Amino acid sequence: MKQLTINTSNQSYPVYIGNNILEEAPDLLGSFLDDKSKALIISDTNVSELYGDKLKRILEPILPVSIITVPNGEHSKSMASYEKLLTACIEQGLDRQSVIFALGGGVIGDLAGFSAATYMRGIPFVQVPTTLLAHDSSVGGKTGINHPLGKNLIGAFHQPSAVLYDTGTLTTLPDEEWRSGFAEMIKHAYIQDPDFLHWLKENVKTIADIKTDKIRQFLKRSIAVKAEIVKEDEREAGIRAFLNFGHTLGHALEKTSGYDGQITHGEAVAAGMVFAMRLSNELGISAWNVSEEINWLKSLNYPVEAPSQYSAQKLINAMKKDKKASAGNIKFVLLKEPGRPLLYTIDEKLLIELLTNDQRGMTRND
Amino acid sequence: MKQLTINTSNQSYPVYIGNNILEEAPDLLGSFLDDKSKALIISDTNVSELYGDKLKRILEPILPVSIITVPNGEHSKSMASYEKLLTACIEQGLDRQSVIFALGGGVIGDLAGFSAATYMRGIPFVQVPTTLLAHDSSVGGKTGINHPLGKNLIGAFHQPSAVLYDTGTLTTLPDEEWRSGFAEMIKHAYIQDPDFLHWLKENVKTIADIKTDKIRQFLKRSIAVKAEIVKEDEREAGIRAFLNFGHTLGHALEKTSGYDGQITHGEAVAAGMVFAMRLSNELGISAWNVSEEINWLKSLNYPVEAPSQYSAQKLINAMKKDKKASAGNIKFVLLKEPGRPLLYTIDEKLLIELLTNDQRGMTRND
Repeated sequence: MKQLTINTSNQSYPVYIGNNILEEAPDLLGSFLDDKSKALIISDTNVSELYGDKLKRILEPILPVSIITVPNGEHSKSMASYEKLLTACIEQGLDRQSVIFALGGGVIGDLAGFSAATYMRGIPFVQVPTTLLAHDSSVGGKTGINHPLGKNLIGAFHQPSAVLYDTGTLTTLPDEEWRSGFAEMIKHAYIQDPDFLHWLKENVKTIADIKTDKIRQFLKRSIAVKAEIVKEDEREAGIRAFLNFGHTLGHALEKTSGYDGQITHGEAVAAGMVFAMRLSNELGISAWNVSEEINWLKSLNYPVEAPSQYSAQKLINAMKKDKKASAGNIKFVLLKEPGRPLLYTIDEKLLIELLTNDQRGMTRND
Repeated sequence: MKQLTINTSNQSYPVYIGNNILEEAPDLLGSFLDDKSKALIISDTNVSELYGDKLKRILEPILPVSIITVPNGEHSKSMASYEKLLTACIEQGLDRQSVIFALGGGVIGDLAGFSAATYMRGIPFVQVPTTLLAHDSSVGGKTGINHPLGKNLIGAFHQPSAVLYDTGTLTTLPDEEWRSGFAEMIKHAYIQDPDFLHWLKENVKTIADIKTDKIRQFLKRSIAVKAEIVKEDEREAGIRAFLNFGHTLGHALEKTSGYDGQITHGEAVAAGMVFAMRLSNELGISAWNVSEEINWLKSLNYPVEAPSQYSAQKLINAMKKDKKASAGNIKFVLLKEPGRPLLYTIDEKLLIELLTNDQRGMTRND
């Protein structure tokens, strides 16, 4: 088992990464559970079927446990699900000494985390991620739900009390989910850890290469990058914005596609990272050999450009509504080289031109 | 004009108290507004009619301002109003550099504050209280909305960036509102400031006595008590619970009456304070001359016992669902003497007996 500690200004909490560590939850959480009155496991219908009763059985010797589920998928990150979960908290008699377990992927982590953040003005919660993508979202305390007009526009910063990462739960994931989650690892490597990037490029030639015992090492290294950034800037006032590398275009692609599964989060981020590298070159702040990066990402079956069915103007309109935009100015995280990110406000005309080229597979630098 | 500073672990902010200081808002807020992109004034229909356009006119030379209103009254502290306000934030193009002004009483402060706390995971807001009761709720960062199953069960701690208390806005309040707000002042005096309590008893014989220029001194002193407690315990992990003096029964009375205006918050708290003093005597931790306290509160037209139409069992069931209850245990703030509060878990049987006596106007100690 591997372990990290996340430090923020007000608290610190452990991240445990190991195979079948769900069984060890009572030991790992230890005294944290001692003064807790009740537990509520929040999960989705798919994950709950696989691991819900198991986690309940494991926790029940320690404290009363109930389970509530929402349907699987992004649509559950809604005001309606949020209200349903708060009602469950009240009906199950949760108080400020109770604890919520977020058992699932990023949707559940965000939704259950936001419920924990705002039920009685905040009760503790434990992240139990069951997807690779959630290795990113389960650490750092961002919680939230979607508004019909935009993703993650409603939320709070609320750090979990612990993260239990049972990599045994990843084995049931389809390749698509592995690929989606691995993009966030690649992102962490690009923005802060050139050695990790090198290691990944050497060791991961196809998606099958991450579905091995090495995944726990990768996870620890990737989460360590996030931990370092969150420690410096919990509330996204500064360098935490670097985690947005690949996400300005990425989020716009997801939004424009209607979050209907045409493009996964990781695929959108991969296309976004390539675009940000091209943009970095275009502005003269870097000299990426973009083709080389593209070849690696292509070998992992990531898209490397914005699909041409989305108009450049539509994508830009979506970018302007992003939380990170300010007074309509679009911000991009650019990369001088691996480990050296920079935050830039980008002119809309330049974006239109580059996006149009990108969609035609034409760029000046590769 | 009077001024205080509220200090919490992560930030400090000013409270300005003065007659007609709305006009001075740009000067008072000073550099805080300099980097703000937009302002949204959130108010209720009544208050907006009186002061909405005025505040908009005052702020407009500095930054773009829009107004959104919800109906007057507690019913607006709902999930539906919350969602409506978040939609307005998005539609008005608010970003993380924008600011929300909460113009109104406690309902607006809580609702607008919770919107600010959770829009894009938190944007700044300024409290502009227009009731006496809001002198309490506008300071300290508690924000929230009601759930059909309980009051204030959904919320967040989110400190305002400033509090602008224009006592000119109080002149339009009916006596009932002055009385309701004054109860929180009395509470602050009881739990922490015996000299203030003495001063109030000497100077305030009827409600008319608070509707004078002295109100600004009273406000400063009362807010100073709250500031001291919030500084020590922002997140209600310890002594902040003392602010709940009079509120265990008070909240239960409000809840049981259905928040329909039969009993104001301050009236419920007044009855609750008297009950807590009786309970303190009953448990042998104090020797209040309860009749003396009752006489003063009666002269101000406060109820001094729980109205007999609410069954003791119903009130106790409501207490058990309070946020401060833990595993169904009912907690009371008791008073050894003015300035010496204590937090006690109280046996349900004793409560039933005392409540029944209270409602019959019978107690052993007065």
